[in-house]
Amino acid sequence: LNTIFVFYKFQIMLQPVSGFSKKTKDEKIDWLVSSYLNDDSASKKILKQYWNHNEKLQKLHDGFIENTISNYYLPFAIAPNFLINGALLPIPMVIEESSVVAAASNTAKYWLERGGFKAEVISTTKNGQVHINFYGDDVAIQTFFSETKSTLIKSISEIEKNMKKRGGGLLDIEFINTTNALEGYYQLHCTFKTNDAMGANFINTCLEEIAKTFESSSKLYADFISENEFPEVVMSILSNYVPECLVRAQVSCPVEKMATNGMDGKTFTTKFVRAIEIAKVEKRRAVTHNKGIMNGIDAVILATGNDFRSVEAGIHAYASKDGNYTSLTDAKIEQGNFIFSIEIPLAIGTIGGLTALHPLVKFGLSLLQNPSAKKLMEIVAVAGLAQNFAALRSLVTTGIQKGHMKMHLANILNYLEVTQAEREQAVVYFKDHAVTHSSVANFIKQLRK
Amino acid sequence: LNTIFVFYKFQIMLQPVSGFSKKTKDEKIDWLVSSYLNDDSASKKILKQYWNHNEKLQKLHDGFIENTISNYYLPFAIAPNFLINGALLPIPMVIEESSVVAAASNTAKYWLERGGFKAEVISTTKNGQVHINFYGDDVAIQTFFSETKSTLIKSISEIEKNMKKRGGGLLDIEFINTTNALEGYYQLHCTFKTNDAMGANFINTCLEEIAKTFESSSKLYADFISENEFPEVVMSILSNYVPECLVRAQVSCPVEKMATNGMDGKTFTTKFVRAIEIAKVEKRRAVTHNKGIMNGIDAVILATGNDFRSVEAGIHAYASKDGNYTSLTDAKIEQGNFIFSIEIPLAIGTIGGLTALHPLVKFGLSLLQNPSAKKLMEIVAVAGLAQNFAALRSLVTTGIQKGHMKMHLANILNYLEVTQAEREQAVVYFKDHAVTHSSVANFIKQLRK
Repeated sequence: LNTIFVFYKFQIMLQPVSGFSKKTKDEKIDWLVSSYLNDDSASKKILKQYWNHNEKLQKLHDGFIENTISNYYLPFAIAPNFLINGALLPIPMVIEESSVVAAASNTAKYWLERGGFKAEVISTTKNGQVHINFYGDDVAIQTFFSETKSTLIKSISEIEKNMKKRGGGLLDIEFINTTNALEGYYQLHCTFKTNDAMGANFINTCLEEIAKTFESSSKLYADFISENEFPEVVMSILSNYVPECLVRAQVSCPVEKMATNGMDGKTFTTKFVRAIEIAKVEKRRAVTHNKGIMNGIDAVILATGNDFRSVEAGIHAYASKDGNYTSLTDAKIEQGNFIFSIEIPLAIGTIGGLTALHPLVKFGLSLLQNPSAKKLMEIVAVAGLAQNFAALRSLVTTGIQKGHMKMHLANILNYLEVTQAEREQAVVYFKDHAVTHSSVANFIKQLRK
Repeated sequence: LNTIFVFYKFQIMLQPVSGFSKKTKDEKIDWLVSSYLNDDSASKKILKQYWNHNEKLQKLHDGFIENTISNYYLPFAIAPNFLINGALLPIPMVIEESSVVAAASNTAKYWLERGGFKAEVISTTKNGQVHINFYGDDVAIQTFFSETKSTLIKSISEIEKNMKKRGGGLLDIEFINTTNALEGYYQLHCTFKTNDAMGANFINTCLEEIAKTFESSSKLYADFISENEFPEVVMSILSNYVPECLVRAQVSCPVEKMATNGMDGKTFTTKFVRAIEIAKVEKRRAVTHNKGIMNGIDAVILATGNDFRSVEAGIHAYASKDGNYTSLTDAKIEQGNFIFSIEIPLAIGTIGGLTALHPLVKFGLSLLQNPSAKKLMEIVAVAGLAQNFAALRSLVTTGIQKGHMKMHLANILNYLEVTQAEREQAVVYFKDHAVTHSSVANFIKQLRK
């Protein structure tokens, strides 16, 4: 590690840093700024201006992950007026993209006047696998599994004790022969209920214990010994593909009450249904269609302390479950009613993990009246459906750029710290001109000449 | 809007709120806390303790989206020692999940001693579509397009003027007949270069203008008039599916130098390659495998002000590009060398949007020496590859729970504000006991009796 690397831009001779994680926060920042930012004191100020004045609170946040040097702000916002299964709720949303919260709020109000959202959890089974190599006799390993299954289950009794008290735990272990896909590949497919916990740690701890028991038991199994062929555990881990952990949300309303943005109800809903049909058959559209849904979903996932990467992975994989990547939402007109729905897999929790640690997550959950995991699944699905409704409503009527550019302009003007008079002139001018950071900056510069 | 809804838990009679977005931040909070949190003053304190003392800075962050009431902290951290194409870089990461930054740092060091990462951008073409209904003659609309194409291109000349100066802009418009998938469905498939900008606003503005020109020109087209069949634009929007915007990253090293976690190089790399083969054939594993990759990718995407929902959608859809959802990474052993690589689509930017507005994003980009979008694509791909390496390295050797539970325990102890002596006792005890929030809290409670 004594090699010296030439840094590509400034041609600074740099050495790798040793023991970075052991440095204090100030030492980390000093090293970064002296090595990579020309010792620029303004950079240090930027980082430190985000530190919380409450040292205890800051220490809590620093400890969430490793090598923390500052707090990254994402706006925490509210979309009020969501009527979900008869209850009126404000939805907390954490997201950096403008328009998303406004779209959620507008959609909430639109459907509040039309009966609100209905949502229901279809199933809540989670899963994980022990992945196994075995090159001996198929029948031998199948028999071994059948004889050992109860031992495998017993081996996690201490681990699942608390979860069982709450009505959850391991549901079953199935032995799956996957050798048709890959030579010598078998799985222990394990299913779980984890109630209000997301359950990743619980499931992984169970799986690793099951794997250990499986491997140690196999060493004593006569058939394996006589053939000198033993199964080998490759890895044990939960799956983020959770098609058995499903939630559905829906809105519906008579077509004639769906007039919007200067379009009558029939024209609007027909065009809306067509937009969904297109997202069903055209992957390039489906991906963007679903991305918009995820704007709503991830914002609630973040605000409630869940893991958006696992949710994203599970949902997008579900969108391709039949071989073609397709729309997560469906719309139809039936007997004069417009019906719009979403069905998504969601493995999330309202206890454990960050939900117990992050004060704003606790706030978000209390605003939602401390929902069960199931109730939160419903709220998240509704947020996704609402976002898709807002996007399609704009796309098939006015287009999305009108709203987007208004927000974008406001952001840039805010950043440039313009006066009210300058703001008004800019709004008029940019009705017919392309909004970019440089065009707005130039316009304000001209004004100020 | 005068209906009164019964609130499901406290049975509070609630009314929808009107003009929420027009309320000041304090008024919004007052309304929320009085309507949903029993007027609890502690809740207000939680929200306000996250406000920045610098009012100007706070106003900037409030303005990013609508209805902002506080700042949600995500830890901003550093994974140092990434050697990428010969340059030594610290990677800024924004993520709430423990272990991810530690895994990135460990992997960076591991590969620093083995030649580092190589990465290259394969292509940078972005795309968007105008989706069209037409129920007349196929040949008529195809001919209309051919005759109108130059007018369509000309119609955006003002919009793309600045982008063209920087060497970007519209590349081409293709007319696609998609009627085999859906009756009457055609597309204008438009391709773009947007250089260092992500370009979503640019592309959408171009598409809406092209659509407008297409529709208005069609009204004057003789063949359509004579048949009284006109094309209708359903919607115009960019695609987040960007398989022509690709980056590749790779590491390689002689197998015998790959010994790790008490496993010799050959055993480790053989098991590693097997784990990838499993992720290639088993969807339940592939989704989790890719989720781990996204831990690294999204953390850099957030730290550099890009949109993780668009990146997630594009990458997961790419993982199912051949009909089966599969691993994004590949590994093999060739002539005694272990070779591990990733190939992903990434439409991201280093100018415009949040990159120009968020001070910590600017800091993150300056730490990366203000990279071009291409250079950032390489860095992001490396972060994904590194994360997958770390995950598989743990999974096929020690298992992942050992490290995870250590982090999880540290977080909970931090939250419980334990003394150093309590911490040490807890660490010893939880070597053989399941770590959950309640089990740790109980243990500390017992200690304190």
